Amino acid sequence: MNKRIQIKDLLKQAGKVASLSGFVEKIRDQKSIQFVIIRDKSGRVQVTVFKPDLPEIAEQFTSITVGSVVEITGKVVAAPNVKLGGIEIVPQTVTVLSLAKLSPIDDQTGPDLAMDYRWIDLRSDKNQAIFKVMTIGEMAFREWFIKNDFTECHTPKITAFPSEGGAEVFEVKYYGQKAYLTQSPQLFKQMAMAAGFEKFFEIGSQYRAEKSYTNRHASESFYCDFEISYIRDHHEVMDTLESAIKHVHKVVEKQCKDILRDQIGVDFKAQTTKFPRITLAESYALLKKERNYDVPRASKGDLDPEGERLLCEIAKEKWNSDFIFITDFPAQVRAFYSMRHDGDSTLCKSFDLLYKGLEITSGAQREHNPDRLRENLVAKGINPKDMEFYVQFFEYGCPPHGGVGFGLQRFFARLMDQPAIRDTTFLQRSPDRLAP
Amino acid sequence: MNKRIQIKDLLKQAGKVASLSGFVEKIRDQKSIQFVIIRDKSGRVQVTVFKPDLPEIAEQFTSITVGSVVEITGKVVAAPNVKLGGIEIVPQTVTVLSLAKLSPIDDQTGPDLAMDYRWIDLRSDKNQAIFKVMTIGEMAFREWFIKNDFTECHTPKITAFPSEGGAEVFEVKYYGQKAYLTQSPQLFKQMAMAAGFEKFFEIGSQYRAEKSYTNRHASESFYCDFEISYIRDHHEVMDTLESAIKHVHKVVEKQCKDILRDQIGVDFKAQTTKFPRITLAESYALLKKERNYDVPRASKGDLDPEGERLLCEIAKEKWNSDFIFITDFPAQVRAFYSMRHDGDSTLCKSFDLLYKGLEITSGAQREHNPDRLRENLVAKGINPKDMEFYVQFFEYGCPPHGGVGFGLQRFFARLMDQPAIRDTTFLQRSPDRLAP
Repeated sequence: MNKRIQIKDLLKQAGKVASLSGFVEKIRDQKSIQFVIIRDKSGRVQVTVFKPDLPEIAEQFTSITVGSVVEITGKVVAAPNVKLGGIEIVPQTVTVLSLAKLSPIDDQTGPDLAMDYRWIDLRSDKNQAIFKVMTIGEMAFREWFIKNDFTECHTPKITAFPSEGGAEVFEVKYYGQKAYLTQSPQLFKQMAMAAGFEKFFEIGSQYRAEKSYTNRHASESFYCDFEISYIRDHHEVMDTLESAIKHVHKVVEKQCKDILRDQIGVDFKAQTTKFPRITLAESYALLKKERNYDVPRASKGDLDPEGERLLCEIAKEKWNSDFIFITDFPAQVRAFYSMRHDGDSTLCKSFDLLYKGLEITSGAQREHNPDRLRENLVAKGINPKDMEFYVQFFEYGCPPHGGVGFGLQRFFARLMDQPAIRDTTFLQRSPDRLAP
Repeated sequence: MNKRIQIKDLLKQAGKVASLSGFVEKIRDQKSIQFVIIRDKSGRVQVTVFKPDLPEIAEQFTSITVGSVVEITGKVVAAPNVKLGGIEIVPQTVTVLSLAKLSPIDDQTGPDLAMDYRWIDLRSDKNQAIFKVMTIGEMAFREWFIKNDFTECHTPKITAFPSEGGAEVFEVKYYGQKAYLTQSPQLFKQMAMAAGFEKFFEIGSQYRAEKSYTNRHASESFYCDFEISYIRDHHEVMDTLESAIKHVHKVVEKQCKDILRDQIGVDFKAQTTKFPRITLAESYALLKKERNYDVPRASKGDLDPEGERLLCEIAKEKWNSDFIFITDFPAQVRAFYSMRHDGDSTLCKSFDLLYKGLEITSGAQREHNPDRLRENLVAKGINPKDMEFYVQFFEYGCPPHGGVGFGLQRFFARLMDQPAIRDTTFLQRSPDRLAP
C-alpha cells in the first residue's frame, strides 16, 4: 500500500500522482469512457478511465462491484467541470481490497430491513453526520463536567438488587446467583455522594425490559447522569443541567452547524435564553389559559404527551425557548427517594425537562435522611428491608444532594429533529430486535 | 443554607464570616476547648470552640459524631500556628445535615470488609485522588481520539451471540430469548469499519464470567477500544496506541503530578521515549541472553507472567521504557479474526503491549476477507455457520482494518503503581462480589 491521501486533501495534489482508498459508490460505464465515484470518510472523487488509453484498468472495472473497497494510485488532474472538487483521477493502478456482493438495501428500504443491515445503512451521509454530531456533543458534555470539577466513575451494570422497585428488569445468571442489569446508576451515584465525591457524572448504559415499541424507548440506552452535593434544593440541579446543555449547544453550533444543515437538513441555533421554570400546577393553568387544554384525568399529577407538546409550543412563543422545566410534582407520582418539600410533604423537590415537545429527563433533590427514606418506602408500599442495602448508604453521613439522568439518544434525536431514537442509536436493542 | 465556600477558598476570607459544609473528620474535646476538623472535597479546616465563649455550640458538638455532615457559619480567623492552611473557624452556628453512625471500618480494615463499605472506604485522600487521576486520564484518551477524527459510538452490551467462541459469558433473559453480555465490542467495532467509519472508539463495559480471583481480573470491566481502517499492517495500530498513551501520560503529568506524589505516593514521569517493539521469537532470545530464562513449555507460543515481568525489566534497562510491544504471535494462540502474515501463515499480524511487568492489551490487524475468515474458523474447529452473523459484515465491502482494546482499570492501576485493579474500580464485580 502507498501512503494514503484522504479525498478532501487531493485538491492540493493536482498535477501529482497520489494514492487514495475508499468504497466504490457508482460506476458509469459508457462506450469509450468509465466514470467511477470513490468515497471515503472525507469526501468523494471521480476516477475517469478513457478506455483506449487504459484498456486493462477498464477491464478491471467491469468486474468491480458497487460497495467494493479499492486502492487507486493515479494522477490528480484539475478538471474544473467536474462537480466533485474540480478534480478527477486518471488511474495508474487499481487494487481491490474487498470485493462486495450486491447490497440488499437501498434508499427505498424500510427501517426494519435497514436495521438488519445496519452497517450498510450507516454508510449514508446522514448517518455518518449523526454520529459525528453525537461524538462532538457528548464530548462537550464531558468537557463541561470536567471543567466544573466533576469526577467520572463507571458504576456496575450488574447488581444484586432490581434498582427501582423490581419491575421491568433483565435477569442475569451470575455464577449461579440471580442478578439484574441496572435500570440507572441512581443508587450508585447517590453512594458517590456519601463517599464525598460532591460532583459525580457518568455516561454509560442502562437497561429497561419494557415491552414498549414506541419511537422514544429502547431496551438498552446510553445515559448521561450526574449528582451534586450540598445543594439547597432542586433548582441547583436545574441550574447545573441548564448550564451543561447550553455549553453543548454552543459547541455543536460552532463545530457542527454546516454538517447539520448540509447532511441532516437541520438549521441549528444554540439556545442562549433562559429555560423557563414553572410548577406543575402552573403548567395546568397555562395550558388552560393559552390552549384551553385540560390534562386528562388519567394523567393528573403528571403531564400527558399532548400536554407536553403544547407546553413546548407555548414556551417557544412566550419565552423563545425550546426547553421548559416543570417543577414540584406530587410525591405520589415520583420515586420514594425524591425529597419532599418542608412546607408541603405531598409535593417533592422534583422536575422534568421538556425539549421540543418531549420530556427528556426527570431530576430531583434526594432524601438523604435514612429514617425519612424508610417512611417514604412504607408510604409506597415497599418493604424497607428490601431496600436496606441502599438506605445504609445514608447511615454513616451523607451530604444533601440531587441529580438527574437523561438518555443521550433521546436528547440528540431532539437536537437533530430526528423522529425516532433508533436514528441516533448505533445498534438498536428492543423487544423484537437483538441483532446484529 | 448560606452560600457555601469551599474549604480551599476560605484562606481568602480571613477576617470575614463564611459558611462551609463537610464531613466531621475528627473531634478533640479538651477541658476548655474543642478542636473539630471538617473536610470537604477541596481540603480540611480546623473549627475551634472555646467552651466558655460558646457553651451552646460546645454542647452541640458533644452529640455530633465523626462522619457526620455539618454546615458551619463562622468567622475565619488567621492562625499562623494552625497547620491546616494557617486559619481556624470560630463558629457562630452549626447545623447537622446528616448524623453518622459509628463507621464499621477504619485504616486497619482488610480489603474485603472495606469493599462491603466501599462508600466509606472511598472517602480516603488516596481513593479520592485515584478517581481524580482516572477522570483526567480517561478524558485525555478521548481528547486524543476526537482530535484525531475518531467517531465514538456506544455498541450494545446485550447480544444474541456469545462474542468470541462461547465460553465464559453471562447469560441474560431477554424477553423469553437467551442472550448474552458482550465480552468486548470486537464484532461491532469491526462492523463500524464495514460501515465506513474509518476511525472508531468506545469506552464502555465488558463482561467475563471467569472464575478468576487474581488481582488482574474482574467480571465487569471498563475498556477503551479503538479500530482503524486502511492500515498497512498491525504496526499502524501500535503507532496509534503509542501516540494515544503518550498523550495521556503528558496530560496526567501536567495535571496530576502533585496529587500522584502527595496522595498516592507515586513519582510520575510521562514516558516520551519510543516503546520498543520486538517479535515473540526475539523476546525468547532476549530472555535467554539477558536473564538466561526459558519460557516454560506450557506457555510456548505466548509469554508466561515471569517472562512478561523480566521483559519489562529489560525494556527499562535497555530502552528506558515502561512499555514494550511483543509482536507476531503464532496464529494458533490468537483469535480466528487475526490476520495472518502473507509470507508465513502460521504467524499473525498481532501484538501485546506490556506495561510495568504486565500485559495490558492485545491487538491485531483483522482478517477482512470473508472466505479466509471461514477458513480460519474451520482451522479453529468452529463451525463457520455459527459465526455467519459476523462474517456477513465483510461480504458487502470492508476496508482493511485493525485495532485494540484495553482495560482502563488495569492501565491506570499500572500507571499509579496500584497492585490490584480493585483499587482502580469504583465497585468491584467478581465471582464472590455482587454488592454493594
